[in-house]
Amino acid sequence: MSTPILKQGHYLIASLQPEQSDTDLLQLQDILVEQVGRFRSRGLILDVTLLDVMDSFATRTLRNIAQAVSLRGAETVIVGIRPEIAFAMVQLGLDARLSGVRTALDLEEALAILNRRCQEGMCRD
Amino acid sequence: MSTPILKQGHYLIASLQPEQSDTDLLQLQDILVEQVGRFRSRGLILDVTLLDVMDSFATRTLRNIAQAVSLRGAETVIVGIRPEIAFAMVQLGLDARLSGVRTALDLEEALAILNRRCQEGMCRD
Repeated sequence: MSTPILKQGHYLIASLQPEQSDTDLLQLQDILVEQVGRFRSRGLILDVTLLDVMDSFATRTLRNIAQAVSLRGAETVIVGIRPEIAFAMVQLGLDARLSGVRTALDLEEALAILNRRCQEGMCRD
Repeated sequence: MSTPILKQGHYLIASLQPEQSDTDLLQLQDILVEQVGRFRSRGLILDVTLLDVMDSFATRTLRNIAQAVSLRGAETVIVGIRPEIAFAMVQLGLDARLSGVRTALDLEEALAILNRRCQEGMCRD
């Protein structure tokens, strides 16, 4: 099951699908890190709105993606963590695993954050 | 016993009531995380001025709220911890449980902190 990845201007937007297996997530990781380089993307938005659960593996993989992409010069924002998932993550201590990764309410807000970072000269031209 | 929640500009202000039960606190948690999304709030101020005690459960719940709200892109500031409560919390080791959550003296200071964070571009437009 592949993840749709949209290229919007200088950003990549990946919408994670609810049926994704761990293998799919690892594939996504490779693809995203490669595409950030190929398209010279300034930012990556990981949209988890469709996810019903965020387990330990998914959380770690998302953080790994953010960190790898950051080494390639792009910033990651995770969007669409639903209230019940946010609580579950906090109770399982998974939110700590996301430390250092920006989160935002939705796509609009993530784009605003990335645009602002670029205006401040924090991302590549 | 419901908690009054004020919407002031981009911020939500919740004033915890002294008679609140643990169930009330859990309800408040759900409501706040939902409202931060609905109103696209940039910040959440938890006012504990009226509380006579801050026990282990209340402390943990406040921290959970702050962390869950942060996953949804808003920052939390706790205000109004009274001197005797601050000492009790330190003696019981409860202050460690609030680690990572901003605290401020009063509402005015909390608003100043949140406004400054927004000017620095750390929060949504």
